[in-house]
Amino acid sequence: MARIVMKFGGTSMAGIERIRNVAARVKREVEAGHQVAVVVSAMAGETDRLVGFCREASSLYDPQEYDVVVSAGEQITSGLLAITLQAMGVPARSWLGWQLPIHTDTAFAKARIGEIDTTALDESLASGVVAVIPGFQGVAEGNRVTTLGRGGSDTSAVAVAAAMKAERCDIYTDVDGVYTTDPRIVPRARKLSKVTYEEMLELASVGAKVLQTRSVGLAMKEQVRVRVLSSFDDARDEDGHRGTLIVGEEEIDDMERQLITGIAHDKNEAKITLTAVPDRPGAVGSIFAPLADAGINVDMIVQNIAHSTGSTDVTFTVPSADLARSLDVLEKGQGEIGYASLVHDTRVAKISVVGVGMRSHAGVASTMFQTLGARGINILAITTSEIKVSVLIEEDYTELAVRVLHTAYGLDAEAA
Amino acid sequence: MARIVMKFGGTSMAGIERIRNVAARVKREVEAGHQVAVVVSAMAGETDRLVGFCREASSLYDPQEYDVVVSAGEQITSGLLAITLQAMGVPARSWLGWQLPIHTDTAFAKARIGEIDTTALDESLASGVVAVIPGFQGVAEGNRVTTLGRGGSDTSAVAVAAAMKAERCDIYTDVDGVYTTDPRIVPRARKLSKVTYEEMLELASVGAKVLQTRSVGLAMKEQVRVRVLSSFDDARDEDGHRGTLIVGEEEIDDMERQLITGIAHDKNEAKITLTAVPDRPGAVGSIFAPLADAGINVDMIVQNIAHSTGSTDVTFTVPSADLARSLDVLEKGQGEIGYASLVHDTRVAKISVVGVGMRSHAGVASTMFQTLGARGINILAITTSEIKVSVLIEEDYTELAVRVLHTAYGLDAEAA
Repeated sequence: MARIVMKFGGTSMAGIERIRNVAARVKREVEAGHQVAVVVSAMAGETDRLVGFCREASSLYDPQEYDVVVSAGEQITSGLLAITLQAMGVPARSWLGWQLPIHTDTAFAKARIGEIDTTALDESLASGVVAVIPGFQGVAEGNRVTTLGRGGSDTSAVAVAAAMKAERCDIYTDVDGVYTTDPRIVPRARKLSKVTYEEMLELASVGAKVLQTRSVGLAMKEQVRVRVLSSFDDARDEDGHRGTLIVGEEEIDDMERQLITGIAHDKNEAKITLTAVPDRPGAVGSIFAPLADAGINVDMIVQNIAHSTGSTDVTFTVPSADLARSLDVLEKGQGEIGYASLVHDTRVAKISVVGVGMRSHAGVASTMFQTLGARGINILAITTSEIKVSVLIEEDYTELAVRVLHTAYGLDAEAA
Repeated sequence: MARIVMKFGGTSMAGIERIRNVAARVKREVEAGHQVAVVVSAMAGETDRLVGFCREASSLYDPQEYDVVVSAGEQITSGLLAITLQAMGVPARSWLGWQLPIHTDTAFAKARIGEIDTTALDESLASGVVAVIPGFQGVAEGNRVTTLGRGGSDTSAVAVAAAMKAERCDIYTDVDGVYTTDPRIVPRARKLSKVTYEEMLELASVGAKVLQTRSVGLAMKEQVRVRVLSSFDDARDEDGHRGTLIVGEEEIDDMERQLITGIAHDKNEAKITLTAVPDRPGAVGSIFAPLADAGINVDMIVQNIAHSTGSTDVTFTVPSADLARSLDVLEKGQGEIGYASLVHDTRVAKISVVGVGMRSHAGVASTMFQTLGARGINILAITTSEIKVSVLIEEDYTELAVRVLHTAYGLDAEAA
C-alpha cells in the first residue's frame, strides 16, 4: 500500500469518454491497493473560454473575480471524475480548494500555495475513498477563491503530494515523458527514464515544456518524486518503466548518469544591444533597474570590453513578448543611461546543453563551441551555469544546432 | 435609500453583451441611492450542458457531485457580472453560496434554503458595494455544495431578499409581467399590475410559468414583495408602473380587486380511470398510497357514486411525465385494489379560473360551466379551491375554452 497522487491535464479530461479513460487508470491504482488522490485540470479549451469572458467583460478585470470565474473549469471536471469513478464502483469524492482547504496567499490569479490541511483528506483516503481535487485553485484569507496562474495544476498536484506525503506524484499528459531534445527536430531523441530536478528546471525553462517550472521547483524543495507519463499510451521501456521520473540527484546511479542529459532550444527570446554605453560605475545598473521595475525578466547579459573611447556595448535578451515594453523603457531612459543607439533582433534562438554530469567534467562548453563552429554557426552570446551552457544563435540555425549537438554529446538513440 | 434584490435569468445573462445590459440596470438602481444585491442564473444553455455531462458520466449520478458540477454555471456569471459592474465604475463583489453562506439542508440537487447569514453582506452593502450572488446554490452541513433544483434561482433571490429585509425583489425575465392568460392564445390578454401570492401560486402551478412556484410560496411566507419585469423592455403601464407586483392581499385596494384575476391552462396532465373499484372503506387509500410512495403527485380526483353492484369508478390526473410509472404502480396493485379495468388518456387539459375575489362572490363556477356548455365543451372532472375552479376537458378544446372564459369574466383588454 502506498499513497500516490495522479494528475491529469486538460487533454486527458476533454469530454466524458476521456474522463472514463482517466477513471480506468485511477481504478487500476486503487485495485493495486494504493490510496489515491487525483488532481485534475479543466477540459481542454475551457479555461481559455472563461478567460475570454473575463477579458471581454473588462480588459482591466479584477483578479479576485477572475479567479471566481476561471476556477469553475476544474470544479466541473472534479465533480465529473468523481461521478465517473463511482459509476465504475470506485468510491470517490471531490474536494474543492476551499473545502480541503488549500490555503494560498492573496496574489489573486497567480497565488502561491501555503499550507494544505490534510486532516479531512487523510481520514477520507484511509476509508478507501479516492479524493478528486481540482487543480489550479485554492482559497486565501477572507475566504476568497484564488487560482495559481496558467498551468498551475501541476503545482497543485506536487503540493498535494507533499502535504499527504505521497510516495509519488504521477503527472499524466499527452507526451510519454521527457526527451533528450524535441523529437520533432531530432527523430532519434531518446526518452529519459530519470532526470534530476535541477536538470528538469533548466530543460523546462528553456523550452522542453512538459511540466510547469514552478511545480518542478516545488517538487525539488519538498523532495516529491514526480513521474511524467502518457494518459493515452501504456508503452513501457525495455526496463519495464513508464514515463520519466524526476528525482533528486542521489536517486540516480553513477551507472545511469550521463554527461549531458538534454538539449533545449527557445525561440521566444529577443536580443537588445545598447551601443556606446559610458564605461563608468552604475551605468549597467541604470539599464537593468528600470527593466526589473517593469517586471521584465532579463536572461542572457553580455558586456563587451570597453572601447578605447571609454564606452562599451551591452547586449542582453528578454522574452519576445516583452520586447516592445522593454524598448519603451529603454528609450525613456536614454538620457540617464547615455547610450548611443538601441538595436534589437527577434530572429535569435537560445540553445542550451544541460546535465548534472558536466559539474565534474571539463570540456562541455568547448565541445559545444567547436561543434557549432564547424557548421559555421555564429555565437552571439554565451551564458553558463553549473549544469547548463547556453548560447544565442541566429534563429535560422536552430534545428541544425540542436541536431549536431545531440549527436556530438552522444545522445542519439541506436537506429531501430 | 432602499435595499432591493434584482434577479436575472439565463436569457438575461447569455453572453457579455447581455451582462452589460444587466449591469446598466443595476447601475441605475445604485445611482438612485439603493443598496443592491443581484442574484444571477447561469448563461442560458449552460446548466443543460453541465447536467448533460453528469448524465453522460452516469445515469445514476451522485447528487453531491452533480451539485459541484452544475453550480459552476452561476459561479461563472456572478464573477463576470462583478467584473462588468466594476468596469462601469460600480463597486461590486461576488458572494458564492459557501462564502455568504447560504445554508441549506442536505437534500442534494433539490435542497431547501435554511438560514442565510447576512453579517458580512450587510457590512458590504452598507459600504456601497453591490453584492452579486449566484442563484441556485448553497452549502450544507459538512461544507458540501448544494443546489436547489431547476429554476431555483428565483427562490435564491426571494430568500436573499427576506434575509436582508429588502424592500422589493425584482425578478427580471424575458416577459414583461404576469398576464390574465397566455397572450399567444388570447391576444387581448391584459398584463396584471398586481396579483396576490395565492393567485400567483395557482396561476404558476397550472401553467403560467413566469416564476418558480417554490419562490412564490417562500415570498408569501416571508412577506417579500416580488416584482416580475422584463430585462429587455422598459415600457411602462399607463399608471407609470413596470411589470407585475406580487404582494399580500392587504396591498390590493378594493378598487383594484377583480372577481377573476386570470385563466390558466395545463396540457401536461394525464387522466387515469379505474373502473369497478369495490365500494368499501380503504379501497381509495389502496389506490393512492402506492402512488404517493412512488413520489407521483396526483392532482384532480373524482369518485363517481357507487354502482348498484357495490362498485365505483375512480378518475384522477397525474403529470403526463409520470403516467408510465403510475400505470406500472397501479397494474402491480390490481390484486389489492381489485379494479376491473385501467383506462388512461393523455389528450386532456386542465383549465382554471383564479381570483381571490371569488371568495366573496357566488356564481363563479356556474358561469364557467355554462360558458363551456354553451360551446359544447364537455367537462370530464372538476376541482375547486377557495380561489380557483379547475375543470378537465378534451385537449382539443383548450384554446377555445380559454378564449371564451377570458371574455365571459370580462378580462379582455379594450380594443386598441
